Amino acid sequence: MAPMTTLKGDPFDRTLFESVTKRRFFFTESFEIYRVAPNFQGDNRGLYDYGPPGCALQANIVDLWRKHFVLEENMLELDCTVITPEPVLKTSGHVDKFADWMCKDAARGEYLRADHLVENVLASRLARGVNGPSKNSPKLDEATAAEYQNILAKIDNYDGPELGDLITKFDIRNPDGNGEVLPPMPFNLMFKSTVGPSAAAPVYLRPETAQGQFLNFRKLLDFNQGAMPFASASIGKSYRNEISPRSGLLRVREFLMAEIEHYVDPEKKEHERFDEVTQLRLPLLDKGTQLAGQTTPRNVSIEDAVKSGTIDNETLGYFLGRIMLFLLKIGVDPSKIRFRQHLDNEMAHYACDCWDAELLTSYGWIECVGCADRSAYDLTVHSKFTGTPLVVKEALRTGPVKVERWQASLDKKLVGPRFKRDAKAVQASVEALDQPLLEKLATELNTTGSVTVDTATPLADGSSSVELSRDLLTIQKVTRLETVREYTPNVIEPSFGIGRILYCLLEQVYWHRPQDVARAVLSLPLAVAPTKVLIVPISAQVQFTPITRKLSSRLRAFGIANNIDSSGASIGKRYARNDELGTPLGITVDFDTLANGSITLRERDTTSQVRGPEDEVLQAVKNLVDGTESWHQIAGRLAPFSAHGQNDD
Amino acid sequence: MAPMTTLKGDPFDRTLFESVTKRRFFFTESFEIYRVAPNFQGDNRGLYDYGPPGCALQANIVDLWRKHFVLEENMLELDCTVITPEPVLKTSGHVDKFADWMCKDAARGEYLRADHLVENVLASRLARGVNGPSKNSPKLDEATAAEYQNILAKIDNYDGPELGDLITKFDIRNPDGNGEVLPPMPFNLMFKSTVGPSAAAPVYLRPETAQGQFLNFRKLLDFNQGAMPFASASIGKSYRNEISPRSGLLRVREFLMAEIEHYVDPEKKEHERFDEVTQLRLPLLDKGTQLAGQTTPRNVSIEDAVKSGTIDNETLGYFLGRIMLFLLKIGVDPSKIRFRQHLDNEMAHYACDCWDAELLTSYGWIECVGCADRSAYDLTVHSKFTGTPLVVKEALRTGPVKVERWQASLDKKLVGPRFKRDAKAVQASVEALDQPLLEKLATELNTTGSVTVDTATPLADGSSSVELSRDLLTIQKVTRLETVREYTPNVIEPSFGIGRILYCLLEQVYWHRPQDVARAVLSLPLAVAPTKVLIVPISAQVQFTPITRKLSSRLRAFGIANNIDSSGASIGKRYARNDELGTPLGITVDFDTLANGSITLRERDTTSQVRGPEDEVLQAVKNLVDGTESWHQIAGRLAPFSAHGQNDD
Repeated sequence: MAPMTTLKGDPFDRTLFESVTKRRFFFTESFEIYRVAPNFQGDNRGLYDYGPPGCALQANIVDLWRKHFVLEENMLELDCTVITPEPVLKTSGHVDKFADWMCKDAARGEYLRADHLVENVLASRLARGVNGPSKNSPKLDEATAAEYQNILAKIDNYDGPELGDLITKFDIRNPDGNGEVLPPMPFNLMFKSTVGPSAAAPVYLRPETAQGQFLNFRKLLDFNQGAMPFASASIGKSYRNEISPRSGLLRVREFLMAEIEHYVDPEKKEHERFDEVTQLRLPLLDKGTQLAGQTTPRNVSIEDAVKSGTIDNETLGYFLGRIMLFLLKIGVDPSKIRFRQHLDNEMAHYACDCWDAELLTSYGWIECVGCADRSAYDLTVHSKFTGTPLVVKEALRTGPVKVERWQASLDKKLVGPRFKRDAKAVQASVEALDQPLLEKLATELNTTGSVTVDTATPLADGSSSVELSRDLLTIQKVTRLETVREYTPNVIEPSFGIGRILYCLLEQVYWHRPQDVARAVLSLPLAVAPTKVLIVPISAQVQFTPITRKLSSRLRAFGIANNIDSSGASIGKRYARNDELGTPLGITVDFDTLANGSITLRERDTTSQVRGPEDEVLQAVKNLVDGTESWHQIAGRLAPFSAHGQNDD
Repeated sequence: MAPMTTLKGDPFDRTLFESVTKRRFFFTESFEIYRVAPNFQGDNRGLYDYGPPGCALQANIVDLWRKHFVLEENMLELDCTVITPEPVLKTSGHVDKFADWMCKDAARGEYLRADHLVENVLASRLARGVNGPSKNSPKLDEATAAEYQNILAKIDNYDGPELGDLITKFDIRNPDGNGEVLPPMPFNLMFKSTVGPSAAAPVYLRPETAQGQFLNFRKLLDFNQGAMPFASASIGKSYRNEISPRSGLLRVREFLMAEIEHYVDPEKKEHERFDEVTQLRLPLLDKGTQLAGQTTPRNVSIEDAVKSGTIDNETLGYFLGRIMLFLLKIGVDPSKIRFRQHLDNEMAHYACDCWDAELLTSYGWIECVGCADRSAYDLTVHSKFTGTPLVVKEALRTGPVKVERWQASLDKKLVGPRFKRDAKAVQASVEALDQPLLEKLATELNTTGSVTVDTATPLADGSSSVELSRDLLTIQKVTRLETVREYTPNVIEPSFGIGRILYCLLEQVYWHRPQDVARAVLSLPLAVAPTKVLIVPISAQVQFTPITRKLSSRLRAFGIANNIDSSGASIGKRYARNDELGTPLGITVDFDTLANGSITLRERDTTSQVRGPEDEVLQAVKNLVDGTESWHQIAGRLAPFSAHGQNDD
């Protein structure tokens, strides 16, 4: 395909762009006919349906993702349930911590996301040059403007109380009606429901696909015949009960995710295929740069970024490179990608390093892929709660090693009668004690005759700890010959928001013919375009039907998605419709086809056409789809074509 | 592949079968490590995760489904949200009617599905020949046994009160503990949640993918450039909060569905491609046969079944045929399929005819595909609630026609001031009045001076009707020249439970080698097998690595999913593992390969092997996958192979 940049002269017009995606049914607000109904009292914001081209585009992106990541590296794909019992998400930390801060405008009964409120109000003051809501507010002085800019640069770094302080300090109010807002409160973002008729079992819709993968770690390792490192992957819907969805597909309550959990030995974060990406340069916006209030990324090779410690380890670097290559493959503009490192306050509580791949759109830079090193957090907490070891056992290559370890044991005859139905929980708590704690407790037990041990789950009487005396509990140092090393793997997690990627891609490939804003084009690459080839007969006469059907079925046999448009509209109109659908190629069948079997092939971006015998043209289409030939090469060897009524104008 | 029937001698052993699907991680109970944890108090029943082979099998079935239905007939695929606002499902009838009847065993605090309770208890009495729970209960006499059999034959035909009568009449109790149960109560099967921080907007997880498709009807028709008939399709998760899930994958709370909504002119239910299926014979178990207490299906050609009215119309017959062909394509045993017609009480309230494709398993006949004629029900109710017309307008081919119609009109100047914010709703209610009602109201208005009109949605004061007097409302007969015919399409809906199909298929393709119950085989056809080819080097020596990698990448270039197993296990063990994974073909690389480039190809079901040069063998694999050559043909032209240590025994 021809380079697009020369054709994309005009500034991006979101209204024109949205009219195309709506008109061509890429996506639509869900339940739209309800929203406009007179007595509808619901909230369908943040919910979108994909129409036929959006659905095909999504399927093609997912298909490429599966080939690029899952098949290329033999990842173990899982499909886990969305419905998740509360204890799982309590353990993972989501019940307590997966929340956004919101402010209530009490007068209007409206809820606003606190960080968005601060961001919008300060950005608006900066844009208007005044320090208040109206034209008559005082002018913004230079020092205050600089302060605002500094706050905006690190807006993701504030917690609720800090946002509350900013709201008070700068008298930030609800832009709708200028009412005061109450201090920020946390709002958990998970959808809650209950399962079964007794309604006694609370469940949530998963906020990410990761937890289901972690819970299956033992089975996955077993399926992988014990070999490390390896990765699992999952593609599926996740849910976040956003406080106040906006920005179309960018902030939605139901979305498709594709996540990889790559399990590594914490002492060996090298990657076998690191060589393949070392020379790739990434636009990195690291922590330090952001905290200095800067927004320009540095272009660094992955090799250098890992060597200098900017990126924590090889495996993380490898995946950042693979993410970059994937984004380029689906047609993202390389000048509109950056990798932004999470600030410390913003990073999930478990992560030790995290980068977002962000894509530039009319809404600014949008986080589309996260790539975090989640350390051993998840496997550790689930293992602790359930008492199921989620570890790797590896024969020591150096042979057996003598090790000294603290070991705790309970008197089994006494534990059962003493603790009854809590006995298992008490046993699990003692088994979960780590070496430093055991050493401390050994001294204490020796000195005072008893120790208090925390339990992972509440006991029958509601308490969360238990006292154990010397008659029940023994803690001693033992020397063992170990032949096996046991460790909890660390997890590197590349996590993709498919809907966001799809939206950003659509914005980036949108343009219009220089002579006409109403003639839009979506320059989707062949790899992801919903339909690869449009087949148009010059007129709706039935004599063309056998030929177009044959062409369609021959292309389908090559596995090439195509469509016949034999509607009565002019050829130009039918092509224009398909330019808006992002269809890269068009084949025209006309009266000469009936005479000599030749057909025309049109390229979407340049609108240039060539002509040749059916077999040659179909082979050219196949070569373009397979990527073995470019349009430039095709145009060089097939005859150029231009005929009245069949070209675009 | 060789025919399997001769090898499947033994009766099906579910325990052995389940140990294979569990050991090879086709699927597993979700959150299993939580369920076994000491203090877990949740309910994870009816929730299953698919492991790598189950996930690949599911993806392959879905992929074939998309090709067989969506691509073959240019259906318009949609991806709609799972979260659905309450008003949508109130209108569709689900909030009021989508329920199962359940009985509470008050003493145990347990809930039982009423129809399952009656079914289980009566079947158990029949099997044991006694008329009560224990051995000492009275013997079952012939008349009562016949009565029980009759009830079981039409168990799906009873509503809640009728089930309650049966429970009383036959003193049916909870088999667990023999306690009495309370009369059946309805339990709505939808999961409920709320959206947004105000929690004022109730939502449900969709119980089917259909509603999202109906709500988009206008956009779909528009996308299809107004042409009828056409179909939309959707593949996605749906949810049913089952009262008491059992039977593994067959009754789950979260499941993947694939649904087609085919929109037709109610006056033209013929199908353009009906010819292609007329001669196909289907095993039909129609209404009449079932009500006579019979269970043997009749083998009827689709042509005859439609002609005789057994199947309501051509389009329904066409889809039943296409469903049959799809099931055969994925490997379902033709002797274990039947099409059962719904009984009147069992049929959804809107349907005018409905058939289930049922597959035979160790749990009996399992409903896997439904195919219903939903008439114009859904489009009509949504149109009525929202005031958005969901209709097709078609130019009359016969030219303009003079028609007399009743027409109601409101005085617009008066309506606004009189009804204020209810004005739109009142207007919509008047517009929704149909011809017979208008005729009736015209007389009433004339006689009494006013009429009462029901409103689709409650008004501001909570009332659901409004009185309209002669000064506001006029109803008169008008004569119009109509050039356009307007109609609400009927919907034929083939609806597939992918998880159920997958489970039944696994049961049907399972067998074991005659000499050894521990050597299981899953005879999945190449089209759906998770992995098509296993590549095994004769030993784990590194000299084989470049060859196996090259073979793997050559197969991947053909689009053929393959796996290398270079673990230390014997060749026989590695093949046995892959027989259980359903891998149809195996390639062995040995020392002769290093010498002369030849490789061995093994067929899973017969365990027979052939040998040839790499290119020839890979071409044979491709031919098998494409379906252009059978194993019998391959074995006839390539050299047979048998060598010590490389065959199975």
